[in-house]
Amino acid sequence: MEEKSQQQQDEQFMRLALIEARQAMDEDEIPIGAVVVCKGQVIARAHNLTERLTDVTAHAEMQAITAASAYLGGKYLTECTLYVTVEPCVMCAGAIAWAQLARIVYGADDEKRGFRRYAPTALHPRTNIQDGILAEECAALMREFFQKKR
Amino acid sequence: MEEKSQQQQDEQFMRLALIEARQAMDEDEIPIGAVVVCKGQVIARAHNLTERLTDVTAHAEMQAITAASAYLGGKYLTECTLYVTVEPCVMCAGAIAWAQLARIVYGADDEKRGFRRYAPTALHPRTNIQDGILAEECAALMREFFQKKR
Repeated sequence: MEEKSQQQQDEQFMRLALIEARQAMDEDEIPIGAVVVCKGQVIARAHNLTERLTDVTAHAEMQAITAASAYLGGKYLTECTLYVTVEPCVMCAGAIAWAQLARIVYGADDEKRGFRRYAPTALHPRTNIQDGILAEECAALMREFFQKKR
Repeated sequence: MEEKSQQQQDEQFMRLALIEARQAMDEDEIPIGAVVVCKGQVIARAHNLTERLTDVTAHAEMQAITAASAYLGGKYLTECTLYVTVEPCVMCAGAIAWAQLARIVYGADDEKRGFRRYAPTALHPRTNIQDGILAEECAALMREFFQKKR
């Protein structure tokens, strides 16, 4: 069997994050999904729940980090990759830094609220960043959501 | 009865945040406490629980924001003030921005992890910031904790 390239693997896990994002959409939440992968295994999945939980902190990434830490029984995710459909905000970037994630992979840029604009040095220096994975699909979900809201 | 000055009120609520911080210390957590005040009433109290919950997101401020939103039944805290014993980190500053808190009051600076260094523009432009309230007491608790840990 041919080994998957890094990009193929990234796309595979981003598709799972997109399933989560679509579930958020179905629940009338801003459609952002996240998964945490550790040694090739998905250990956490989550989607944005800020409306249902009436809680601005209930972003997909925050819940995925909390769930992954609970699964591993440790608060540092140094061997994990976080996949998220949209560029993390400042809050989530701060959480990613505290959790010391090895790598983050995101889909669409968020020029308005993304951490790269407000806190470009917020992440841990060892955290590797990959952007643009399935970016168009990730962005299309967001556009669809906000068009419906108008 | 004489009306309390803003500073007297700030010190009064910071003392409650310090009680929370001391409780964190008793539980062997980094001693940071927070309270949320709405129209003169305390509506949430919390302290750092990252060790007990095995969760880097369980900072005092995050829990206080979650609890205040649950209490009010709305995710925006536009009429609230957050008191916290130590300068918020980037993650917490991001959450404070999303929650649109009217005002934050903190005690000790955190030059290493505080948001002012990494994300000085992370807060909502309308959020008023007051630092230095009971700073020495807030900082002393932190020093005591880290000296014991050495």
